[in-house]
Amino acid sequence: MIFGKIVGTVVSTQIDEGIKGKKCLLAQTCNHKGEVNNNYLVAVDLVGAGVEEVVIISQGSSARQTEITHQKPVDCVIVGIVDMVEEHNKIVFKK
Amino acid sequence: MIFGKIVGTVVSTQIDEGIKGKKCLLAQTCNHKGEVNNNYLVAVDLVGAGVEEVVIISQGSSARQTEITHQKPVDCVIVGIVDMVEEHNKIVFKK
Amino acid sequence: MIFGKIVGTVVSTQIDEGIKGKKCLLAQTCNHKGEVNNNYLVAVDLVGAGVEEVVIISQGSSARQTEITHQKPVDCVIVGIVDMVEEHNKIVFKK
Amino acid sequence: MIFGKIVGTVVSTQIDEGIKGKKCLLAQTCNHKGEVNNNYLVAVDLVGAGVEEVVIISQGSSARQTEITHQKPVDCVIVGIVDMVEEHNKIVFKK
Amino acid sequence: MIFGKIVGTVVSTQIDEGIKGKKCLLAQTCNHKGEVNNNYLVAVDLVGAGVEEVVIISQGSSARQTEITHQKPVDCVIVGIVDMVEEHNKIVFKK
Repeated sequence: MIFGKIVGTVVSTQIDEGIKGKKCLLAQTCNHKGEVNNNYLVAVDLVGAGVEEVVIISQGSSARQTEITHQKPVDCVIVGIVDMVEEHNKIVFKK
Repeated sequence: MIFGKIVGTVVSTQIDEGIKGKKCLLAQTCNHKGEVNNNYLVAVDLVGAGVEEVVIISQGSSARQTEITHQKPVDCVIVGIVDMVEEHNKIVFKK
Repeated sequence: MIFGKIVGTVVSTQIDEGIKGKKCLLAQTCNHKGEVNNNYLVAVDLVGAGVEEVVIISQGSSARQTEITHQKPVDCVIVGIVDMVEEHNKIVFKK
Repeated sequence: MIFGKIVGTVVSTQIDEGIKGKKCLLAQTCNHKGEVNNNYLVAVDLVGAGVEEVVIISQGSSARQTEITHQKPVDCVIVGIVDMVEEHNKIVFKK
Repeated sequence: MIFGKIVGTVVSTQIDEGIKGKKCLLAQTCNHKGEVNNNYLVAVDLVGAGVEEVVIISQGSSARQTEITHQKPVDCVIVGIVDMVEEHNKIVFKK
């Protein structure tokens, strides 16, 4: 999985039935410290993530292994909100 | 999912039976503001997207989780037309 | 799907049973105008593509959604030959 | 599969049920000599990997072909700890 | 599929049961002429490939469509040894 930072929301009304009604968040990919880079994804939220939170993003067919996304044309989901990242015994990110 | 901008159409008559007859659009990948970069995709349209619209693109096996693309050799579909993108409480894209 | 240009053939006799006998073409990825870049793929041909033709390439598990590649270790197929690409109401590629 | 170096752990309590309780390690991708580059992944550990170890990482749907990750929204697992890498008859990495 | 050059072997004893015992080769990705670039993969060998040989590599779920890798956490296999590559009617690689 990769790291992302939630930076907003994406609104789409003319959308495939399989995604309709799901919360589509705007995520900017980031490193393990929450430092963003210039890549934006539309991710379906599974865990109640909010703006500015650093999250864990799962992609591809694995993004469909949940009740909400099963057999839906979704290739990107937020599977967790990061509380803390520890690197070489130092805390490098804390919520 | 990623963002794309519809910029045209792709015509192919000598095409696999599984894709024949489906609307193949030319999408340029873009960021959340609709600013395009130099990458072009052929995407099957599921939602009636038109030229200049910013869309949500789903890829890989997830692109087959729709009635139109089920068990077809399609790895890229347009699942939604973006109405609005909000980033850090500001509207950064509006249709 | 992405665009590719057929530039040659790949010959392999010591090859997995699942691919043996299939036509493996050398494709150079390209943009929507057929302008090649420096990336080469080995793609199984499904549509009778020939050298110098610009084609549509499907990848990943979607590459197996055809009779020829079903349950074979193939992750890249040519699903269509491009006749024409139209961008912003201008024809930018024609076979 | 690719090479990664374990550099820490990722803690997430608000996490999808399918991943809850699994050991999520912070892996930095690296080359075959264990020289890291600037890309960080969250990987589920299957083999008891520890910090500083160089590991083999499997991604995508293949990451779910284990008892621990079967039908879970996991797209990245550690499938092996590298003992030794030999390149052109020279040992270039040893645990 | 992509091209790779076999440059060595990877030894791992603490490895997932699904991969245990399989021959894991060190492959450097390369172009159609066998010119390597700086990317290293761990690939399961299906065809008896040896060091210095240029091979065809299949990735993702397609890597599991063989008897040896069926339902195993393997995302990269060597499906063929390249004998010859012909580009624009010239032989650009020969084993």
